[in-house]
Amino acid sequence: MELKNDLILRAARGEAIERYPVWLMRQAGRILPEYRAVRAKLSGFKELVETPEFACEVTIQPVDLLGVDAAIIFSDILVVPEAMGLEYQMLEQKGPWFEKTIRSEEGLKYAETNFDIEDRLGYVLDAIRMTSKELDGRVPLIGFAGAPWTIFCYMVEGKGSKTFSESRKLLYTNPTLAHELLNRITDVTIQYLKAQVKAGAHMLQVFDSWAGILGTEQYAEFGLKYLDKIANALNEVPLTIFSKGAITSIPAVAKLNCNTVGLDWNMDPVKTREIIGESRTIQGNLDPCALYASHKEVENLTRNMLDSFTSKRHIVNLGHGVYPDIDPEKVKTFIKTVKDYELRY
Amino acid sequence: MELKNDLILRAARGEAIERYPVWLMRQAGRILPEYRAVRAKLSGFKELVETPEFACEVTIQPVDLLGVDAAIIFSDILVVPEAMGLEYQMLEQKGPWFEKTIRSEEGLKYAETNFDIEDRLGYVLDAIRMTSKELDGRVPLIGFAGAPWTIFCYMVEGKGSKTFSESRKLLYTNPTLAHELLNRITDVTIQYLKAQVKAGAHMLQVFDSWAGILGTEQYAEFGLKYLDKIANALNEVPLTIFSKGAITSIPAVAKLNCNTVGLDWNMDPVKTREIIGESRTIQGNLDPCALYASHKEVENLTRNMLDSFTSKRHIVNLGHGVYPDIDPEKVKTFIKTVKDYELRY
Repeated sequence: MELKNDLILRAARGEAIERYPVWLMRQAGRILPEYRAVRAKLSGFKELVETPEFACEVTIQPVDLLGVDAAIIFSDILVVPEAMGLEYQMLEQKGPWFEKTIRSEEGLKYAETNFDIEDRLGYVLDAIRMTSKELDGRVPLIGFAGAPWTIFCYMVEGKGSKTFSESRKLLYTNPTLAHELLNRITDVTIQYLKAQVKAGAHMLQVFDSWAGILGTEQYAEFGLKYLDKIANALNEVPLTIFSKGAITSIPAVAKLNCNTVGLDWNMDPVKTREIIGESRTIQGNLDPCALYASHKEVENLTRNMLDSFTSKRHIVNLGHGVYPDIDPEKVKTFIKTVKDYELRY
Repeated sequence: MELKNDLILRAARGEAIERYPVWLMRQAGRILPEYRAVRAKLSGFKELVETPEFACEVTIQPVDLLGVDAAIIFSDILVVPEAMGLEYQMLEQKGPWFEKTIRSEEGLKYAETNFDIEDRLGYVLDAIRMTSKELDGRVPLIGFAGAPWTIFCYMVEGKGSKTFSESRKLLYTNPTLAHELLNRITDVTIQYLKAQVKAGAHMLQVFDSWAGILGTEQYAEFGLKYLDKIANALNEVPLTIFSKGAITSIPAVAKLNCNTVGLDWNMDPVKTREIIGESRTIQGNLDPCALYASHKEVENLTRNMLDSFTSKRHIVNLGHGVYPDIDPEKVKTFIKTVKDYELRY
């Protein structure tokens, strides 16, 4: 199916664009009343993730309602550890929780790799197929997965944490086990992302949400090494890598076989451009809190960011997922400012 | 009273030392069974903080039991907002919680500045006086406070948070109010730290635990500006500033009128030294998770860090507070390795 708007794909590849493309992490869900209406009919977050019709509906909402230049499939990075054998619950106000965790060799029985992706994650692939059809080429559809390090954090810790000290402990006490688990997650993630492309994803993003809790050397060994495998295994569609918080590792991320490097709101796109040159597209990175400001101020802050860009290789986004209590009208102002901005490159 | 061991003060001032001094953030409390025995007799964390006899006892425990080169007064950074008018509770497993928060001008009534420090924070000063006497010059006593930005985060958010989005929101929606509140916290903090020195603290540390959630520019405006005021107001004893996570702002921190810059475990002491030169002492920064490794490995990891140092201007510490489930014997191995290390500078 031919895409009517392929701006984001061209920006990712460094091709000519008429204007910067724009979308928001977490655009599907959270802020839209239309999303909450769908969510209210269901038993919980997981029913939404696991029912392709609903996942498709909320994936398309921001395309219709906000006018973003890409859709991102509504799902969760934790579907991968669940498929491998660790079931999770999403607790209200508390976040994800796993009954079992992997902290010894014995725990590896909960990290299966020999299974059929269609069999255990078919519901995500069905959602992608359905959404791809429904979108009818209006904008590209982004598929995604968590980075091995981030998924490892949850499989070892069993829940969110400020320090993920149980996960980091394993790097010191049993690095062999850590690498075995990371390898397994990597294998499944590659299969899963390939299946997403086959199902209709036009672009992929890998989220390394907990990259920032490791120092540069440990992130190279336990994070980047596996992102490298993933990046080398995926060549069909543009790939974005978002290593949140890993500010000292951005030059290394930019050397991976990817098209786009995601920046969080604390990273400087100008300095990043100086370091990585024109070889990669930069995605981001307005502070999500900027959308709490007045409309005029949202416009100014967005415009200041755009003014700082010195290249066409940008995909505009926030530096983190949009926060739940942000007024959708502010998001519209952000998007309009980007769309109205006259490109200089 | 003359100090028998003033190694840490000399290291902070860049004077000659025989070996690197060593202590651990959170050394008083958490890991020691002797601490837990004291804690078990009490109603909760706050009773311990508010009772000088007990605070004194647990402050001295690591000096006796671990052989650190400094004591740090057992207290909490949240005693300052409480003295200003916002009472807090320390909830088991959950952390701090404030019933009231400051999110509008009206809330400023909970941010008093015109009160007598001795009157509202006398229990901390008593604990310092008592500890100073009990220590009898064995090692210096460190006093501390939270940085204005970090205290602001709690006063606005009312509890811990991954994103502190309510606190950051205020920077966009009402920067005037934010600066007013930060100024008030700064005023009280300066008085409080001066009172600590008068009570017997030989050295001060300011903890900016949430520095890392702001980008470089916002941290300059809402963080460093107030640290600068504090650093300029305190000239009697050596001052350490620990801006956790603010990796891009370390050069700016090192330009403040302080003696020592604290590094978290993700920061590189070698690169930091290249940037800041010999003008400041560096404190840190072994990964607290390294203490989960075997004794041999703890020794190796500690020695590797010491080998990387190219100056005498170091105070050895972890890059974060010691984690509660760390074996005190591992801490002893860490300390012994530092003490046995032959200084090259």
